[in-house]
Amino acid sequence: MTAPVFERLAIIGCGLIGSSVIRAARAKGAVGQIAVYDASAAVRDRVRALGIADQVFDDPVSAVRDADLVIFAAPPAAIASAALAAAAGFKPGAILSDVGSVKGAIGEALNAAAPPGVFVVPGHPIAGTEQSGPDAGFATLFEGRWTILCPQASTDPAYPDAVERTSAFWRALGAQVELMDERHHDLVLAVTSHLPHLIAYNIVGTAADLEEVAEGEVMKYSAGGFRDFTRIAASDPVMWRDVFLLNKDAVLEILGRFTEDLQALSRAIRWGEGDKLEALFTRTREIRRGIVAAGQESAEPNFGRDKKTP
Amino acid sequence: MTAPVFERLAIIGCGLIGSSVIRAARAKGAVGQIAVYDASAAVRDRVRALGIADQVFDDPVSAVRDADLVIFAAPPAAIASAALAAAAGFKPGAILSDVGSVKGAIGEALNAAAPPGVFVVPGHPIAGTEQSGPDAGFATLFEGRWTILCPQASTDPAYPDAVERTSAFWRALGAQVELMDERHHDLVLAVTSHLPHLIAYNIVGTAADLEEVAEGEVMKYSAGGFRDFTRIAASDPVMWRDVFLLNKDAVLEILGRFTEDLQALSRAIRWGEGDKLEALFTRTREIRRGIVAAGQESAEPNFGRDKKTP
Repeated sequence: MTAPVFERLAIIGCGLIGSSVIRAARAKGAVGQIAVYDASAAVRDRVRALGIADQVFDDPVSAVRDADLVIFAAPPAAIASAALAAAAGFKPGAILSDVGSVKGAIGEALNAAAPPGVFVVPGHPIAGTEQSGPDAGFATLFEGRWTILCPQASTDPAYPDAVERTSAFWRALGAQVELMDERHHDLVLAVTSHLPHLIAYNIVGTAADLEEVAEGEVMKYSAGGFRDFTRIAASDPVMWRDVFLLNKDAVLEILGRFTEDLQALSRAIRWGEGDKLEALFTRTREIRRGIVAAGQESAEPNFGRDKKTP
Repeated sequence: MTAPVFERLAIIGCGLIGSSVIRAARAKGAVGQIAVYDASAAVRDRVRALGIADQVFDDPVSAVRDADLVIFAAPPAAIASAALAAAAGFKPGAILSDVGSVKGAIGEALNAAAPPGVFVVPGHPIAGTEQSGPDAGFATLFEGRWTILCPQASTDPAYPDAVERTSAFWRALGAQVELMDERHHDLVLAVTSHLPHLIAYNIVGTAADLEEVAEGEVMKYSAGGFRDFTRIAASDPVMWRDVFLLNKDAVLEILGRFTEDLQALSRAIRWGEGDKLEALFTRTREIRRGIVAAGQESAEPNFGRDKKTP
């Protein structure tokens, strides 16, 4: 425990990520007081029952009042209206941030709601699970993970300090912080996260629609690769709907390239071009080895999520 | 340990799966003697050095001689010629089986090589890791996993007993055995394993080709979903080349459906049809819950392969 980075934190939207921020901030002593607002009365009641926040408010203006850091952790498309609804309560000098997987559109939304003297520092912790809701959060979610912050164009001499304090907050929660242009963030995440989710949702849907194969069979023999996709495809439907709608351009661009490549692969299978297939598969294996060598993943085999017992 | 199911086992092709069969058969006392042949002299030397087999032969005919069960564990497309090359050594009453992920084409290949009085019982243990080679095998690989056997049309009154003994062998190794028509196997696996691998190979290739995003960035931020794909895309290139070529019809059929569905999803994103996206994502989440409820997977969140610490 060190001195709190911020005296008062407000969390607007308290699901898996919002409640994990609260738990982590509490565990690490990163903030003094924590206030919460969520648009759902049921969630507010649940957060009260969990006892993880100091105060749970029934309106956003009261929740953000006096907060030094306001983190919007609502579904991405709900942030614009949530920020406007809270705007009357923003304290001068407060920092507005978020945890959304899309940064361009959310940065715009926060800027539209921020009066002069309130700083906007959009953020994205690359961490999560396929669970949702305030009960699903846990204090170690951000430990050793990357949080990307996207500084905005600002001529305010105090703005760099706002970025630095937001970075310090995430570092206090155990994350490594990287600053990035928001357009670049949205392209990188379209590749590393949004397209994988879209593909996973799609393949699980395709499998479920097959008349010739029973759903029970798909489940029973899912250890051959499918099971990993079903886990990804269990992620929060509303959040992911918003991600695809708000990062439309980058997602469609990457999806277009993916589809072209897949057509080429399909053609190689149809014409029996084994050398082309083997060349691609050899190349992708090297990429994986790069990830393992870079320490981003253990080398332990876990196909089908089984443990190797040597 | 119980009485051996077979007196003598021959393994033709000794990589991850072949060497795991040997280790498991040994650990469980499922066979008396184990003979090995591999087309690669380097692999044969390595198997000798590992000391996991009783005998390692430099030719297939000697390896299969006197064997009661011959398991071809070579890459799928190499099995046809391997079986023909070994045919002169098959003992009357021997069972020919395999471990390939495609059953129709391999069944044909084994039948073409089997003289009268030799039984063909193609098999497929649904287990593996993304590692390859004889060092990668381990004795518990098949524990609690499914092995599918595809009985052939046979009028030989002794054939049902051959199927039953092959089943008993896999059960002795810890697997659960299911009998299935080979065409149905090839369709089910096209969905649950072949398409997931093809998609994973493809997306990793697409990501590697992006000029705007450095490979290092893709690795760094791969926890958002991409990392699971890279693991699958690290699977053995030659084996998977063969799977796609030998199961071409089923793979192209399933791939066609997948692509259609993906185009519809792409269109929904372009036109901002959030309700369609949310409906699909909600449905796929239910399917995942079905898998978890069926005990095929733990409910523990592991997005990015992190463990939840409650």
